[in-house]
Amino acid sequence: MKRNELLAAGVLMAVAIGLSGCATMAKTGSAAFQTAVEATWRTYCSSLKAGDADTWIALWDENGIQLPPGAPMVVGRKNIEKAIRGALQAVSFVDFTIDLAETETAGNLGFARGTYAATMKPQAGGPEAAINGKYLTVFKKQSDGSWKIYRDCFNSNTP
Amino acid sequence: MKRNELLAAGVLMAVAIGLSGCATMAKTGSAAFQTAVEATWRTYCSSLKAGDADTWIALWDENGIQLPPGAPMVVGRKNIEKAIRGALQAVSFVDFTIDLAETETAGNLGFARGTYAATMKPQAGGPEAAINGKYLTVFKKQSDGSWKIYRDCFNSNTP
Repeated sequence: MKRNELLAAGVLMAVAIGLSGCATMAKTGSAAFQTAVEATWRTYCSSLKAGDADTWIALWDENGIQLPPGAPMVVGRKNIEKAIRGALQAVSFVDFTIDLAETETAGNLGFARGTYAATMKPQAGGPEAAINGKYLTVFKKQSDGSWKIYRDCFNSNTP
Repeated sequence: MKRNELLAAGVLMAVAIGLSGCATMAKTGSAAFQTAVEATWRTYCSSLKAGDADTWIALWDENGIQLPPGAPMVVGRKNIEKAIRGALQAVSFVDFTIDLAETETAGNLGFARGTYAATMKPQAGGPEAAINGKYLTVFKKQSDGSWKIYRDCFNSNTP
C-alpha cells in the first residue's frame, strides 16, 4: 500500500467506526432508557402516595411542561411544583399505579406510553375518588446521563 | 510527518468528521421536522374541515396510536380510520385550528406540542359546539424520509 492508499483506508475505517458509533449509542440508550423510565414511574407513584412533593418534583426537567386534563399547561418545574403542593394539600393518594406499555428513544429524547390508575382521598374528609387514564410522556436526557420528565400529557379513559 | 503520524492525523480528522456528521444531520433534521409538522397540521385541519378521512388518515404511521380524552387508546391506523369515519358521520368540523408551540427531534423520533380549537356541528342538526385543548404528539420518520403521526395525546383546557 502506498501512503495515500493507507491514509484513505484509515479514513474510511474511521468514518465507519464513527457511524457505527452513532448506531451503537442509540441501541445501548434504549435499554438504559427503559430502565430509567421504570425507576421514574416507581418513584412517581411512591412519592405521591407518601405525599412527598420534594422527591416527586425532582423527577422533572427544569424546563418541564405538564399537560393535565381540564386545565391549561403548567410550564416550568417551579410552576409544576406549586401545582403538586396544592394538590397534595387538597388530597392524599391512597393508591397510584402506572402501567408502562412501551418506551422508545433516540439521542437525548425518549417517550413512554401507558395507563395509570389512582385513588384519592380528600384531606378535608369525604369519600374516596378513583381515576384511571392514559399518558404520553417525553423524557429528556440530562447532562449527567439521567433522564427527566420533559413533557407529560394525560387524560381519562372515561367521559 | 511520518507515515504513521499522517495516518493517525487522517483517522482523527475522519472521526471528527464522522462525529460532526451526526450533529449536522440532527440540525438539518430539526428544521426539516419543524416544516413537516407545520405541513401535517395544515393538512390535519383542512382535511377535517373538508370531511376528507382519506387525506387525514394518510398523515398517520401504520402503527400509530391515538390517546383521545374520555375514551380508551385507539391502536393502529385501521382502528384510527374507523374512529374518524364514525366521527365525521356524527359531526362536521366548521373550524379546526392547531397552534404549534414547539417541536424537537432526535434521530427518527420527534415531538410537537401546542394547542387546538375546533367548532363542530352535528350532522343531524342542532347547535354548534366549540372545544379547545392542548396536545403532545410524537412523530416517526418513515423509510422515505417523511414524518408521520405516531403517538397523539390531547385533552381539554377546561373541566
